[in-house]
Amino acid sequence: MTAIAVRAVAPGDGEILLRMTRELARVHDVLDLHQAAASNYEDALFCAQPIIGAFLAFDGADAAGAAVWHRSYSTNRGCEIMYLEDVVVLPPHRRKGVAHALLRAVSREAVKRAYPSVYWLMAEWNAEAGALYDKIGAVAEPGNIVWRLSGTALHGFAR
Amino acid sequence: MTAIAVRAVAPGDGEILLRMTRELARVHDVLDLHQAAASNYEDALFCAQPIIGAFLAFDGADAAGAAVWHRSYSTNRGCEIMYLEDVVVLPPHRRKGVAHALLRAVSREAVKRAYPSVYWLMAEWNAEAGALYDKIGAVAEPGNIVWRLSGTALHGFAR
Repeated sequence: MTAIAVRAVAPGDGEILLRMTRELARVHDVLDLHQAAASNYEDALFCAQPIIGAFLAFDGADAAGAAVWHRSYSTNRGCEIMYLEDVVVLPPHRRKGVAHALLRAVSREAVKRAYPSVYWLMAEWNAEAGALYDKIGAVAEPGNIVWRLSGTALHGFAR
Repeated sequence: MTAIAVRAVAPGDGEILLRMTRELARVHDVLDLHQAAASNYEDALFCAQPIIGAFLAFDGADAAGAAVWHRSYSTNRGCEIMYLEDVVVLPPHRRKGVAHALLRAVSREAVKRAYPSVYWLMAEWNAEAGALYDKIGAVAEPGNIVWRLSGTALHGFAR
């Protein structure tokens, strides 16, 4: 088993990151909604005041997974916290500790930024991910529903 | 019935906003976790590149409610979207259209910024809020669990 190495994304990594987010969209059966281009990610990651960040995991020489986070804000705490948008592991690299290594990198980034917490959403069917989150000390907060207003409904209401 | 007026927060509104977020924490029974100060909000709202924004609603001369949003990012869409962190209506001003007016202001801000969607979390017990969200055209996405890593667990894992 090769060692898993994690590093922050760098300019030029947009295509690798795109492969990762497309894999995540495939797993969640929303690939038809995936519209992003590699340049979108590079623009957002490497602008003057980015709100997002990302880490890539490598299994030997192969890109094996990614985590994308963005700055969030807690009105209870009165400070920024971290939202973890995506954790992806490509199928050939599963069960090797890739997600664990990515979560650790994300957690270190949060601590470095003095963010008091990291939060994310998990699909209820993803018990395997839940077991990992539990193992690293995260706490599930059930009883929440995501609502979304978009497209013609958003534009109609905003009129 | 007086008209409900909504405007974006302005410097000096930190104390009003604090009253609102404390009310929301009270309703959700987490007032003991509320640590924010008015100055935290003013610092975050009126810095050079803010990630948060807020609207205040007034019922006649009285501050009646608030909505706080922050910039989020969709890796599927490859662009910023809007996360709605808080919608609060103070008890004396309920059932007067305050939340509806706040949601419309938030939606207009999203459209102005060319954000394709606004999303938020709702506690499952809050059926009254759910009815309003449904009415304005938002769509519920059940089957998600919030996970949070914070405090000593976060610091322990990040070590």
